[in-house]
This record gives sequence, structure tokens and C-alpha cells, in this order.
Amino acid sequence: METKEINYSFIKVGDHLTDEQAMALAIHVAKAGAPYVSPNPLVGCTILNSENKLVSTGYHQKYGEAHAEINAINGLSADQLANTKIFVTLEPCAHEGKTGSCAKKLIQFKIKKLIFGLVDPNPLVAGQGAEILRQAGIEAVEYQGSLKNDLEDLCEVFLKNFREKKTFVAMKVASSLDGQIALSTGESQWITTPESREYVHELRSWYDAIIVGSNTIEVDNPSLNIRHPSIQKETKLIILDPESKLSGKIFKFQDLHKPENVHILKFKDLNDVMNQLWALNIKSVFIEGGAYTYSSFLKVGLVDRLHLFMNTSVIGAGNGLSWTKGFGIEALADKKSLKNTKIRTFGSDLYVTGRF
Amino acid sequence: METKEINYSFIKVGDHLTDEQAMALAIHVAKAGAPYVSPNPLVGCTILNSENKLVSTGYHQKYGEAHAEINAINGLSADQLANTKIFVTLEPCAHEGKTGSCAKKLIQFKIKKLIFGLVDPNPLVAGQGAEILRQAGIEAVEYQGSLKNDLEDLCEVFLKNFREKKTFVAMKVASSLDGQIALSTGESQWITTPESREYVHELRSWYDAIIVGSNTIEVDNPSLNIRHPSIQKETKLIILDPESKLSGKIFKFQDLHKPENVHILKFKDLNDVMNQLWALNIKSVFIEGGAYTYSSFLKVGLVDRLHLFMNTSVIGAGNGLSWTKGFGIEALADKKSLKNTKIRTFGSDLYVTGRF
Repeated sequence: METKEINYSFIKVGDHLTDEQAMALAIHVAKAGAPYVSPNPLVGCTILNSENKLVSTGYHQKYGEAHAEINAINGLSADQLANTKIFVTLEPCAHEGKTGSCAKKLIQFKIKKLIFGLVDPNPLVAGQGAEILRQAGIEAVEYQGSLKNDLEDLCEVFLKNFREKKTFVAMKVASSLDGQIALSTGESQWITTPESREYVHELRSWYDAIIVGSNTIEVDNPSLNIRHPSIQKETKLIILDPESKLSGKIFKFQDLHKPENVHILKFKDLNDVMNQLWALNIKSVFIEGGAYTYSSFLKVGLVDRLHLFMNTSVIGAGNGLSWTKGFGIEALADKKSLKNTKIRTFGSDLYVTGRF
Repeated sequence: METKEINYSFIKVGDHLTDEQAMALAIHVAKAGAPYVSPNPLVGCTILNSENKLVSTGYHQKYGEAHAEINAINGLSADQLANTKIFVTLEPCAHEGKTGSCAKKLIQFKIKKLIFGLVDPNPLVAGQGAEILRQAGIEAVEYQGSLKNDLEDLCEVFLKNFREKKTFVAMKVASSLDGQIALSTGESQWITTPESREYVHELRSWYDAIIVGSNTIEVDNPSLNIRHPSIQKETKLIILDPESKLSGKIFKFQDLHKPENVHILKFKDLNDVMNQLWALNIKSVFIEGGAYTYSSFLKVGLVDRLHLFMNTSVIGAGNGLSWTKGFGIEALADKKSLKNTKIRTFGSDLYVTGRF
């Protein structure tokens, strides 16, 4: 399990990188696009010269704009690109879409080798981008190193959308070390540190919409908008309100979100919710509570990723609210384990994230 | 919060160390004595020469045997000790006890400076060890760097014993990310990884006795001995059995512990338990469950340190057992926060420890 993030801010053009470091850097730079690329995947690119020195990086910054490879080669001369190795987290696109084909652009230069992290998930076009490079005499190979799981993580929303035609579901929880998210009195502000809460605003921007249950709106009256110094984005808000409890009442979110960005859903069951989200063209959601909503999604196995912020304190289940109150398993063999788990700290809080 | 341990195995004699690194190394080497020094404190010592190069280390290995400073200087010539800086985690002893006075031993050499981590907690002798060195013309100063909390942690059992005349109470919990330690069926083996469980055997050896509630004995029938490749120690076992539920029944612990090492306590309340432990000359205990025992100790504020092993999985409170089931607070301001928290990983588990 990774317990410390590499400090990429120390890496500069001209630094010598290994292939693994080059791919790690491509993954890292890609993440800066998270608030703006949907429904496209996050993609990053790193270019090394013949001496394995860093020439440039690029990433897909915004839906409809240039892809990662193009941003990485922009501004470089044909001479600078000659004999380079290009690392890209996803196979270059073969087809002309909103922008031109990246594969066709790359073959205009005397690149030595292309290393792509994942094959295009579309079986109809998988391998075609790489094939365009091979036809042009450029070696093009799929990456087979230790970062395969991190590449899948980077691309997880796009892969889920493409493979299953379903909305990706992330869940954020802010608890104590003993799994409590509030007191039985409803008091829940605040369990985690300001540093954690700032990062939550960044996480909100990574997903197409926030989901909360109507009970959380009634009890906490939260803002649920994105308040972050370097991110400009209005997020969509989905409120699960099967019994129309909120109808006719006044809440804070109504002032902070444009009406067209708010969807108050009535539904039969969570599969119905998933169908409605997909029909609304929402590619990813970020569940923010409460305990009933968390437990309901866990129960039907619909959660793809957990973002768990834990304050290093104990609240006690005796007068608390457990975030998994309504979820249970019959045998320990059925516990829901995280994969490719990462840990960070925010102030004195612990942050754990992984894919179920 | 510290998320990664320094790998001290890379440090060798002759390496250049800063003062902070020298004290950190003294703290590190001291821990090897944890199974064997009680009721003495853990103490470590590092010696640097006039060029700040590591000359030697030493630690208090076993109760009744040589102190850390003596082990560090043993085998060194007067020439090697001339002009050195000696870092020791606790002020050298002034008095003659089981072994000679360390302060009086040190002044036989032309040491340049002594830096001690903590003043002797006994107000009647505090500063006397340092004074013996000063009288002999050796500079002797209390350490004032960033490791003060780590020095207090190292010495925590001894400090508690000395300052409060009370047994130090550590609590070990093995839970899921949502605070569950078992299913409601009683199934609890195993939630954490084999790597975590091996470390628990090491932790058991750090304390004078293990405590469990009688319910845990009845439900889990645990061995509760120390099974670790490099530790030879028989631990004491305290079973809290106020209603004599265990009387006349057969359990695994009876085969694995000598009768004189097992105490089945009847008691009025937990203060009575603490008085009985102190009367039994038990300086530190390691609570291993179950939920009722954990909660009871939390409720009366008797827990000094938490050792929390969390498997990166979700079990669900819906059919689980929360380790803080019987503990609750009235307001979030009363949550019990950890201080000087440290994080490690064991296999895919997360380990969090800190002082309340």
C-alpha cells in the first residue's frame, strides 16, 4: 500500500527519468484535468529524449480541447521530437472526433517509441491507434510495469462507462476512527479537519454530480457546491427523495445551485436511480451521505470507489451514527475489500481511498 | 502525522548524523528493550564524535542489567570517547541502584557534551544526573528539538507509573474501516492480515499483562500468549470476570499460561481493577477486548494509548459489532482525540497508534 505521494513538483525538464517514473509522471499530470474532461477520460503524456531526459509533459485539459499527446508535443520542433520516447496513459486515438486523430499526428515526427498505458477500451477500435504508429515504422507497445492498477484507477470512470454503460459511483465518508459520522442528536459538524474538507471540495469537482439523501438535506441543510481557490465549476446535485419529503420546503442548496443543475429523484430502487443517472448523461457521481444512502448503495454492490476521511479520534457507537448502520454481511468472507488502496493525511486526519 | 518510518537499518558506524538524527536513532534503538526492561524505562543512547560521525549506540536491554549509556560506551577506549557528544533519551541516573550511577561513570571520560531527552521524572532526583556531569566540567543540556513527543511516547509507561502511581493502559483493536470487530454471530477470525497479527504478538511483549473480558474468553477461546520468532517471554494474563462466568470451565489459555501468570479478577468497578493491577505490581496492560471491555475503559477515561489495526474493508454495522458499542459522548467537542499519532501499514492493513 502506498503511504506517501511522490512530490512531483521537484521534477523539471532535463531531469533523467526511468520508464516507470515517466509513466508515473504522465499519470500525475493527467489528474489536473479531473474537473473538466468528462465524459472523456483523464489522459497524461510524458516525452523523454534519447538520453531519457524529460522533454515535456501534457494532459487532456478540457472536454472538446486538445488531447494529452498534442499538448505534450505542442511547441516542440521536429528535431526535439526526433528519437524520443512518448509515454501516454491511454492508447492514442485512431479516429477523428472533436479533435484530429492523435495517432495520425504523432506519425508526422520521427518518434522512436510509444508506450501506452492501457489499450482503448472500445473493442471495435482497440489497437488501431497503436497500429497506425507501427505502420509508420514507430515501435508502439502496451505498458506492462508496476503502475497498471494506477492506470486503471486514472481511467476508472471512463472504463466503467464504456464497459458497463453505467455511471461510476464514488462515496465520500467523514468519520471517526470507530466509524461514526454524527451523534444520534444529528450533530456532525465537524468531525474532520479543515484540510480534509478543502480536499473534499476538490473531489467534488472530479465527478459529474453529487448525490445525497433527502434526510441529509433536512438534517444538515448543506451547501454542496464547490468552494476551492483554484477550481471554477458548478456541479450537478442529485437528491434522492423517494417520498417527496423536501417538496415545498426551503433549503440552502436552492440558492447555491442553478435549478437546471439540481435533480430531485423519485425512484423505485437503486437500479432505477442508476438508470435515471445514465439517462441524465451523468457519467460519475459522488455520494456524500447520509448513513441510509451509504448503506443502501453498499447493500446492492453499486459503489466503485470509497473516499474515507477519518479523524484520529473516537466518538463511540453508543451515542453515534455508524456510516454502515443499514449494511451487513452474513460471513466475514463477504466483507467488501478495497483494492489498490492509497493513504494520505490531511492535517491530523487520515484519508483512505480504494476501489471495491 | 508521520506516515513512514525511517529505515534505521541503513545507518552504520561512521555515518554523519545531525543532532536530531542522533536523538531519533537513540529512540529507535531503545525500543528493542521493550519486552524486557519493565519496571524500568526504555532508554537509548547514541554517541557522535567531534566530526558528528556515529561512534556507537546502546540501549537498556533488560531489567537489572546495564543502562543504555553503559552499553553505548562499553568497548570504546578513552581516546574514542574523548570529545564526543552523547545523546540519551532520559537523564543519566545519579544514584547507585541495581547498577552503578551512569552519571558517575560518564565523568570518567573527556566527553564534550551530553544531550538528554527528558529530565528524570522523579522531582527528588531530577537534574542531579546532569549536575554531576556539569560539576565535572561536561556540558549537559536537556534536548529541545522536534522529537520531544516521541521521547515522551518512548517513556510513557514509566512516566505514567511515576507521575500517577497507576498502571499504563494500552488498547488494541482489530477492526474494519467502519469500526466493526466481529459479526453479530460472533465470527471475528480473521478481520486483519497475518502481518498485523504478527505485530500484535510483538506488542503483547511490550506490556506486563494482557487484559480481556470473560465474554471474549467464552466466545473466542483465544490463546493470548506471545508467539513471535524473536521474542521469548511469558506474559501475564488478566481476565475481567466480575460474575464468575468462567469458574469451573475449560479454556485454551489454561494450557498455555502458567497458573501463577493468570489472574481472574472480581471487582467493583474499573478503579478497583486499576488498584488491583497496581497491587499486583503490573506496570502496563494491553487490553485485547471485547467490545464491552473496550467501551468500559473508554467511558471512564482510563485508556492511555490506542493501537488500532484496520483492515481496508467494510463489514457493516448492520450485522456487525462496533468496538465502541457501549461508549458514547454528548457533544462532538467531547470526542477523544489521539495525540502524536503514527501510521504504518501491515500487509494491506492500516495501523494507527496515538496517545489519548
